[in-house]
Amino acid sequence: MKQFINAKEALVTEAIDGALRTAGGRLARLDGYPHIKVVVRTDWDRSKVALVSGGGSGHEPSHAGFVGRGMLTAAVCGEVFASPSVDAVLAGILAVTGPAGCLLIVKNYTGDRLNFGLAAERARAFGLDVSMVIVDDDVALPDLPQARGVAGTLFVHKIAGALAEKGADLEMVTQAARQVIEGVVSIGMSLDTCTVPGSPKEDRIAVGKAELGLGIHGEAGVEQVDFEGARQAMEMVVNRLAPAIGDGPHVALLNNLGSATPLEMSVLAEELARSKIGNRVSHLVGPAPMMTSLDMHGFSISLLPLVDAALPGLQADVAPWAWPGCNAISEIEVLPLPDGLTPIQPMPSKNAQAEALIRRCCEILIGAAGDLNALDAKSGDGDTGSTLSTAARALIKALDRLPLADWTQLYRAIGLELSQTMGGSSGVLLAIFFAAAGDASASGMQTVDALKAGLARIQQVGGAGPGDRTMIDALAPALEALPSGLATAAAAARKGADHTATLKRAKAGRASYVSESNLFGHNDPGAEAVARLLEELERTLSAQDIEVQN
Amino acid sequence: MKQFINAKEALVTEAIDGALRTAGGRLARLDGYPHIKVVVRTDWDRSKVALVSGGGSGHEPSHAGFVGRGMLTAAVCGEVFASPSVDAVLAGILAVTGPAGCLLIVKNYTGDRLNFGLAAERARAFGLDVSMVIVDDDVALPDLPQARGVAGTLFVHKIAGALAEKGADLEMVTQAARQVIEGVVSIGMSLDTCTVPGSPKEDRIAVGKAELGLGIHGEAGVEQVDFEGARQAMEMVVNRLAPAIGDGPHVALLNNLGSATPLEMSVLAEELARSKIGNRVSHLVGPAPMMTSLDMHGFSISLLPLVDAALPGLQADVAPWAWPGCNAISEIEVLPLPDGLTPIQPMPSKNAQAEALIRRCCEILIGAAGDLNALDAKSGDGDTGSTLSTAARALIKALDRLPLADWTQLYRAIGLELSQTMGGSSGVLLAIFFAAAGDASASGMQTVDALKAGLARIQQVGGAGPGDRTMIDALAPALEALPSGLATAAAAARKGADHTATLKRAKAGRASYVSESNLFGHNDPGAEAVARLLEELERTLSAQDIEVQN
Repeated sequence: MKQFINAKEALVTEAIDGALRTAGGRLARLDGYPHIKVVVRTDWDRSKVALVSGGGSGHEPSHAGFVGRGMLTAAVCGEVFASPSVDAVLAGILAVTGPAGCLLIVKNYTGDRLNFGLAAERARAFGLDVSMVIVDDDVALPDLPQARGVAGTLFVHKIAGALAEKGADLEMVTQAARQVIEGVVSIGMSLDTCTVPGSPKEDRIAVGKAELGLGIHGEAGVEQVDFEGARQAMEMVVNRLAPAIGDGPHVALLNNLGSATPLEMSVLAEELARSKIGNRVSHLVGPAPMMTSLDMHGFSISLLPLVDAALPGLQADVAPWAWPGCNAISEIEVLPLPDGLTPIQPMPSKNAQAEALIRRCCEILIGAAGDLNALDAKSGDGDTGSTLSTAARALIKALDRLPLADWTQLYRAIGLELSQTMGGSSGVLLAIFFAAAGDASASGMQTVDALKAGLARIQQVGGAGPGDRTMIDALAPALEALPSGLATAAAAARKGADHTATLKRAKAGRASYVSESNLFGHNDPGAEAVARLLEELERTLSAQDIEVQN
Repeated sequence: MKQFINAKEALVTEAIDGALRTAGGRLARLDGYPHIKVVVRTDWDRSKVALVSGGGSGHEPSHAGFVGRGMLTAAVCGEVFASPSVDAVLAGILAVTGPAGCLLIVKNYTGDRLNFGLAAERARAFGLDVSMVIVDDDVALPDLPQARGVAGTLFVHKIAGALAEKGADLEMVTQAARQVIEGVVSIGMSLDTCTVPGSPKEDRIAVGKAELGLGIHGEAGVEQVDFEGARQAMEMVVNRLAPAIGDGPHVALLNNLGSATPLEMSVLAEELARSKIGNRVSHLVGPAPMMTSLDMHGFSISLLPLVDAALPGLQADVAPWAWPGCNAISEIEVLPLPDGLTPIQPMPSKNAQAEALIRRCCEILIGAAGDLNALDAKSGDGDTGSTLSTAARALIKALDRLPLADWTQLYRAIGLELSQTMGGSSGVLLAIFFAAAGDASASGMQTVDALKAGLARIQQVGGAGPGDRTMIDALAPALEALPSGLATAAAAARKGADHTATLKRAKAGRASYVSESNLFGHNDPGAEAVARLLEELERTLSAQDIEVQN
């Protein structure tokens, strides 16, 4: 089992109970478990037209999630992907229907049609005024006489719900529902199948493929298509929808079928707005999970012609949180960047030796990238080497605009370059290090003391000290040793870096989340970078090069 | 690629644009793409304390989804799982901070801490009043000096946001945030890793295993544990949280880490309420996706001591839809089933021949279950045989309470039994069939005509007719032929059933969603069931048995 459920048989009742318990008292259920699973509003006095919908479970928040003021009065829930029984539907109708009558909103699947249909007949036999609409919005199979009902059903719930809440009579509510059904079209696309609880996942859709025109019960899509990305996926969906809609403005409902991430859903919203029907989509509901298919990694789009009467209904306030609202699609408002972001650039100046030193340092770090990445993979996300070499490359490119002849300005400028080109933590630590060294240099400190001031600042901001398995374990002893020469400093850095392999627990940085056994025996990549840098400098720089710094 | 994205490099900016475009004009962004990705409120005049949060992307709706009245003023978004740069944070601070100052809400990851920390220093250099809090709610590694910041951050956003909205000063807002951080504890659990866009999915968690105590960036959990189900999973999570909380009431935040289904999340909510700390959890935020980790199939629970001051803040109205509200956890309200649901049971009566006939029909259907399932697997969900045999078994069990001596009552009673024991579409069709036959029998019709009336009713409700590849294709000719004897009727049913294999498209039922090539050559399972029933009856019943019916 790869799902947070208990027994498959108790899944739907336990889920309904969980939802009721956390609904703040707005919802109740009928006493009919396990066969009768009906969720009803507690704030309901039967004085208005009742709206009853439902069907198989696995489509949450549909349907129980939309019970509440302004939307459904009751939801009749079946087992996963199975219609509720006639008795369950009848119980739902009888529980909420008063003199104003009841509208049944049914998706066009045979089981739902039959069970709701038979229940309606039985309810009418009690003298209740019951009407029924069948939603058939799916355009995946255009030549099918009985199109499926999918996420477009939400438009019916919302618009009929708003009317009923306002006190419209059954005839008006039913007519409005029929008008929505007349106009709404939907189609879905998915990159993977859904996982039915208790069943193995069907491995039907290969990488690089998508299914277009699928239902919400795991039925295969009408066709498998090549999948290249969000834009092309939206294009295919739009190409199916475009012939089915008129020229006027439409409201779109962008539904998450289950496990598409919010990032993906937002990208899809943007692609819809940019698509060839974008100019005909004036409003959007979502993106949000509304009519899901368990954990299906897919989405659906429903389009409804935006007649004047529909908008107030779509935008009316409702109690159910699951309804994401209906907003006008707008241009993206872009505000100018605030003043103060662009620091004053220092005047570039020349200094061949400083340039050679920086270039050599950068080259050393670029050369060590692979080793450092490999070390980092033991304790972090494996990118220390890449991060440092990216920065080093950027710094080499920036050499001709650096104030190479002025060490105070140079420290600051290097700090600035690093803060602008690196997002990761090592980048900022280095930026802080050089910025602080620059400040110290400005106040008259010499190289070693200025670098020590930088070290002090990164300990303060980063929260790490010696022994915490960071670059500090190499940097601190190296700076202490530096007055005795580069060779001594390099040896001290090496000793410090190697010592990190014996430290069982990191106290800061990403490595602090990794277990001891994974760390032990591997040098910290930051400390190793410091040691490598000094060792290689010592090996390749002449004594005269070093003199320049002091 | 198995994601609805375009280029990995453009994912976050495209997603932000999609979110802005569909936010109804509430949100804008700064003009700093691609490096500076800052989302800000458009209804903001800098007269109140600004709240700035952010971090790597991939945690949506955090953070941009919580920008708006009553929560964040700005969100600074990094690339997926990467801290935003110092410049980006600084831009966010400068864009929204006025004389009332700004609170930075930072999760305790080194990168965020450094980048927000350095930006704060740079903003303070402009004379702005900036304070910063670091959320460290994760209790997965209790002996770690620097606990991670995870979903508990939402409590800080909401409570500090409500205070700032009310006009509290920076000191008060910061103090409130610190108090939340002091009290909140969180832990997460997942059944699978997340899929980082552009990278292959790491297959780290085997079936039957779960990771407990994981971060929100794909870091491995503190331990892999055996996973048995929702109850035991919640027990493990609660066992980690219980020692970390006090005795008083708490508010829990039940966070979907990505792709757990709403059904699973509701089951988990129920398990939390039933757990050993259930009596200490008085309110719940969610279940909802709030601080996700891309598509991670997991959840987290955060607990905050419910001091009096916190509740108004948690329940204050906010603009961002992503905030799911904070409700008191209540007992489940269970309403009595409505009257009229339980039909009057007919008086049982004896009739050995009728009993034998029904039993034989049931046994035939039970015997054909495997064949019918196999046929149904070609066109539907493979359960026609199981559905019919389940109903048949239930009917055999019900034999001693049936009015076997009165055919009118018997038809109705069989219809009633079937409607109570079968949820699927075939069950209801049969229930309608027998209910209508009973009505017809009551009005004086003989067997064949009564059964024809039943047939007419299922055609009307189900929407299918002859030639539509349903049981009607066998049933209709069989009933026409029945006056000529059972053998003729069986032959007619067989002919009709076999004819369905030549029908290329189903017009009703689940088979109507299946392509022609999958249907052609296979009998419709419903029609086949009718033919089998009559053939076997004809083969095994004596002439006398048949007489009984006419």
